[in-house]
Amino acid sequence: MRVGVLLAGCGVFDGAEIHEATLTLYFLDREGVEIVCMAPNIPQKEVINHLTGEKSDEKRNVLVEAARIARGEIKDINDVTADDIDALIMPGGYGVAKNFSNFLEKGADADVIPEVKRLLVEMFEKGKPIGAVCISPVIVAAALREAKVKLTIGSDEQVSKAIEAMGQQHLVCPVSEALVDEEHKIVSTPAYMEGKTIKDVAEGIEKLVKEVLRLAGK
Amino acid sequence: MRVGVLLAGCGVFDGAEIHEATLTLYFLDREGVEIVCMAPNIPQKEVINHLTGEKSDEKRNVLVEAARIARGEIKDINDVTADDIDALIMPGGYGVAKNFSNFLEKGADADVIPEVKRLLVEMFEKGKPIGAVCISPVIVAAALREAKVKLTIGSDEQVSKAIEAMGQQHLVCPVSEALVDEEHKIVSTPAYMEGKTIKDVAEGIEKLVKEVLRLAGK
Repeated sequence: MRVGVLLAGCGVFDGAEIHEATLTLYFLDREGVEIVCMAPNIPQKEVINHLTGEKSDEKRNVLVEAARIARGEIKDINDVTADDIDALIMPGGYGVAKNFSNFLEKGADADVIPEVKRLLVEMFEKGKPIGAVCISPVIVAAALREAKVKLTIGSDEQVSKAIEAMGQQHLVCPVSEALVDEEHKIVSTPAYMEGKTIKDVAEGIEKLVKEVLRLAGK
Repeated sequence: MRVGVLLAGCGVFDGAEIHEATLTLYFLDREGVEIVCMAPNIPQKEVINHLTGEKSDEKRNVLVEAARIARGEIKDINDVTADDIDALIMPGGYGVAKNFSNFLEKGADADVIPEVKRLLVEMFEKGKPIGAVCISPVIVAAALREAKVKLTIGSDEQVSKAIEAMGQQHLVCPVSEALVDEEHKIVSTPAYMEGKTIKDVAEGIEKLVKEVLRLAGK
């Protein structure tokens, strides 16, 4: 079994959340599945200095930075189709919202970048499971507009209302759990949308990984 | 109990190895201890494009990049003394060798940068435990020259000979284990010096964390 892990860069404020991404890889590897890391080969929307929280003048590339988390073993998402993988998991981080969509500007009217939308729609149409961590359910919601998918981002009211406005169903879920939409084969967990520390986040991600693999037929 | 985690940047080829660093934080948090992430506020020796493996022209700062792993919660190592923490753990990554020393150029004659050497010597002299992951035992060996400490970096002959030449004792240790020097309160595990995938590396790091906390009196 091969599971894709879609990364939005490297760092919570402008890329993929590093703990969520690493824990996803850890729990997948413990289950003995093959991991296919991937990212779009596009410029980051911005670079944030993670020490000060301020925007930097630097320019970085999502695929090149995501390669840090993947230790160089990563594909351009354009080279991956739903036929290549049995399931797809998206760790969170602000970079998911910033680099994969215009959600921070447009809210419920957000568009997903074509590189990411294409693979999400393919997975959904082939009935292959998708796992969405932290803020990632927003991208799933926007890519699969009006699909009536059950999703969680924890209990944030503004974001959960946007998910509902995109034609999905938002359910509150604690950080220690993963919400399963059996019909649509989509699993989500709030991770750092709710969690205070890494061990909380790990509990939900461990469950998400197990449920995604179960839905994939493992 | 407060445990320091010393980071050398963010990314295996020029900074801290992200999986080792994240797993260290995860296992520490599961034990319920307070974590104090830290890094020196110095330029990285180099920036490596982790997609291609090639050297980049970019300039980055070790503390600023390490803040990505720490989600912004990080201190300048110059603001931390051995009185502030009960134990110190160093995850690995090439950045440990490159940014904390001139080991890649000088081998057994390597010097450790003063910011890092000062804290390692303080911890050692106060009998507070140090955990060294992956390549980090080289830095411990160089900082505590001729201390006859038992260390492991797995089975790499060149690096283990350098550790012996620095006046320490190198012992071979599998990735799933952590080597404990009870007398000097130093624990080491080879991690990605030996491990093929993240679950292997996690086994040794989990044991290292438990042994470091035991030596710290938890």
